Amino acid sequence: MRKLSLLLLLTILWISCNQKQEKTTNLKSLSSEEKVDSTKIKTLFNSVLTEGKSYEWLRDLTKNVGGRLSGSTEAAKAVEWGEKLMKEVGLDSVWLQPVMVPHWVRGEKEIANYTINRKQKNVPICALGFSVATPSSGVSAEVIEVKSLEEAEALGTKMKGKIVFFNRPFDNTLIHTFKAYGGCVDQRVRGAAICGKFGAKGVIVRSMTNAVDDFPHTGTMSYGDLPKEKYIPAAAISSKAANILSTDLKKNPNLKFYFKQSCETLPDAPSFNVVGEIRGSKTPENIFVVGGHLDSWDLGEGAHDDGTGIVQSLEVAYLFKKNNIKPKNTIRVVFFMNEENGTRGAKKYAELAKFNKENHIGGLESDAGGHTPRGFSIDANSVNTKLLQSWKKLLSPYGLHDLDKGGSGADISPLKGENVTLVGYRPDSQRYFDYHHTSRDTFDKVNKRELELGSASMASIIYLMDKYLYSNTPVKP
Amino acid sequence: MRKLSLLLLLTILWISCNQKQEKTTNLKSLSSEEKVDSTKIKTLFNSVLTEGKSYEWLRDLTKNVGGRLSGSTEAAKAVEWGEKLMKEVGLDSVWLQPVMVPHWVRGEKEIANYTINRKQKNVPICALGFSVATPSSGVSAEVIEVKSLEEAEALGTKMKGKIVFFNRPFDNTLIHTFKAYGGCVDQRVRGAAICGKFGAKGVIVRSMTNAVDDFPHTGTMSYGDLPKEKYIPAAAISSKAANILSTDLKKNPNLKFYFKQSCETLPDAPSFNVVGEIRGSKTPENIFVVGGHLDSWDLGEGAHDDGTGIVQSLEVAYLFKKNNIKPKNTIRVVFFMNEENGTRGAKKYAELAKFNKENHIGGLESDAGGHTPRGFSIDANSVNTKLLQSWKKLLSPYGLHDLDKGGSGADISPLKGENVTLVGYRPDSQRYFDYHHTSRDTFDKVNKRELELGSASMASIIYLMDKYLYSNTPVKP
Repeated sequence: MRKLSLLLLLTILWISCNQKQEKTTNLKSLSSEEKVDSTKIKTLFNSVLTEGKSYEWLRDLTKNVGGRLSGSTEAAKAVEWGEKLMKEVGLDSVWLQPVMVPHWVRGEKEIANYTINRKQKNVPICALGFSVATPSSGVSAEVIEVKSLEEAEALGTKMKGKIVFFNRPFDNTLIHTFKAYGGCVDQRVRGAAICGKFGAKGVIVRSMTNAVDDFPHTGTMSYGDLPKEKYIPAAAISSKAANILSTDLKKNPNLKFYFKQSCETLPDAPSFNVVGEIRGSKTPENIFVVGGHLDSWDLGEGAHDDGTGIVQSLEVAYLFKKNNIKPKNTIRVVFFMNEENGTRGAKKYAELAKFNKENHIGGLESDAGGHTPRGFSIDANSVNTKLLQSWKKLLSPYGLHDLDKGGSGADISPLKGENVTLVGYRPDSQRYFDYHHTSRDTFDKVNKRELELGSASMASIIYLMDKYLYSNTPVKP
Repeated sequence: MRKLSLLLLLTILWISCNQKQEKTTNLKSLSSEEKVDSTKIKTLFNSVLTEGKSYEWLRDLTKNVGGRLSGSTEAAKAVEWGEKLMKEVGLDSVWLQPVMVPHWVRGEKEIANYTINRKQKNVPICALGFSVATPSSGVSAEVIEVKSLEEAEALGTKMKGKIVFFNRPFDNTLIHTFKAYGGCVDQRVRGAAICGKFGAKGVIVRSMTNAVDDFPHTGTMSYGDLPKEKYIPAAAISSKAANILSTDLKKNPNLKFYFKQSCETLPDAPSFNVVGEIRGSKTPENIFVVGGHLDSWDLGEGAHDDGTGIVQSLEVAYLFKKNNIKPKNTIRVVFFMNEENGTRGAKKYAELAKFNKENHIGGLESDAGGHTPRGFSIDANSVNTKLLQSWKKLLSPYGLHDLDKGGSGADISPLKGENVTLVGYRPDSQRYFDYHHTSRDTFDKVNKRELELGSASMASIIYLMDKYLYSNTPVKP
């Protein structure tokens, strides 16, 4: 018995040491109405964690549709998938919004290499979205490494006939990785426009990532107002290869870099936003939009970018229906098309909203991955910002501590207005740029619970916004 | 130019919408001393994110040593690895504490199956730590499914000659997964002791996980005070197989389950805790312990459990040295042996501390995985608890919001005392039980930044504890 008692004691000790007490909202500190809200939010979380649908929806989207760049067969398939699924969830109405989208295709797998000390090194690259192809025999030239657009601009015609290599890495000391992305992405977007002007033969850009690995990250770029004859091919190079190339250039500044890609921009193609809504029970003319983007880059499966945002947005509506929450205002779920290279879906949605004189009072976007919840970013007037921040005590038991002012997302921000409350869902960002725009953005990188907690987080803030925003005097934005 | 301007505008808009402003501590709200601390903490984070060592240390441990169950060759190798590494980091002194540890070995890969509708189903199982083997021909018997120890106990001799199947799943509605673990693990630890008493032929226990998948989770169990002749074999069954078996038992309650395992407990083996310290500059007799456990289960590589805790603990000392932080008190890093099945290392450490009249004023343990930081759990008197909680404004910019009272960890809790401040590092727990005690607990599941942020989080709280705890009157606990 002694042995068992000791064991029991140790077990209990172990559990008490290792487990963290479930932290629920301290009900004593809440008003009676807040207690109602606290209970409702708990219901949403319980519901998603026991009967959530988003994970299997995401499996279906990523595995049976896959990567779905605007204009592709897969994107068309994704539209059908989205419309069918919204109908299955039983939204009050589901429809498609036609929109013409850019249609860029990658073509054959890209090739890159260079020779140093008589040894050929193959380099993982991928064409950037909207880039032109190289000649069919590829491009070969000496390389000039730069760290910024300014440095490139200053080179002027010295870059003529050369390949310009943009190699400014992420600032890894920034805790929020989107900030590091924001500090580097100008190289990818505008590098070719600047270097084409001065007659460079091509640009290669260090991949947008915190990691040092072998995966090139694609993403959109633009030639700006450059005349077509000055367009030069642009590719991303993996961060590890960028480091190696940089070292090799110090050893041999005259090494010749070769790359070949066969991408092209075809004529615009017809596509759609997929839209569905739960009609408001009291003021259906007031609309909250909840969405993410349906298109994705072609290299991976578009899991974290932005399959997770899509399925979470629909799960918000599913959780409302499942738990018999009848919103006062209309909750509209939108799967936006073409966020990645054009945001044509977002523009079309905003244009139609204006044309139809729709009264959008708020929006919520999930386009920062499907990782564990951290909070929301609030783009609203100061009164509504404070109102949303006052819900912290209801949200923090679910890990939602960050309720700062900031942007919402590329797809809903065209709806911005003085009285429109826009919110961006902000999950943990540490892993996001390991996968973003690469072949690694696949279903297996998404954790079921993290995804579901995101859905319930989003449903909770929509529940509160629907209940409290403009609750007395509906405002016409 | 119009096109380029539009593009620029869109790019800027995109960045402002998608990126979150880096949230640093609002310096205006801090006292001058807190500003010093805030700067020091930022230095620790910058340092780890640009020149951190823990990730490569962990790669080495998981890939070149691997799973390292107490008493195994790998555990002995891990001790050598740890001692060598501590010396390389340049701690003031490094030594080994001898300790005898249990030596259980798994033997051959376990086999399990049953036949239903003339179809044989193979079942993923693994022996539980300390379980006896089945007879070499295996065990075959009818199955009784129960959901709790109480339900099993109530069966009494009805279970004679049967296999008892413990199948109470995790409560997935609990946000903190350790709480769900705490609510289920009694089945694994005590199931066989109860069923052996009543003459069952064996027990199979649903794996301790939130997920439904094919991976059995091992872990420790005990026969308590059962006489040896009543010991029965105990195994974990994957959660997915548990669901299927449960369904099949409803179709055919008489189906016969077969399993075979060849594990055994050998005589205790000699092993060691690995200890190293930075000697305090003012009151070296006061000691803060920082640690994790060096042993791991044998099925995986012991990455999240607890390779991450080990390398983070050593990185705390590395960051102090690298940034020339000279602690007033002694910072002692301990790689505890045998946390998984016996906590002999923890007991030995506490015993020696007492014997040598060492003055431990605090401790920090990392044994909850290497995921993204969420906070710390505080086991201290109310004055010190409040002091630690007052540091929230310094810690929250790094995602460290949770500073609740709670347990610290199995390895440092034997040091508990009225004036000893014990802290458990608490990273995000959502993914932890996907890997815990399985073949999936491998290096690739650990994210470099998440791991490093954990190290800096730990270094920050140790920096603050060293500076402010007992700063005026060193307390003899």
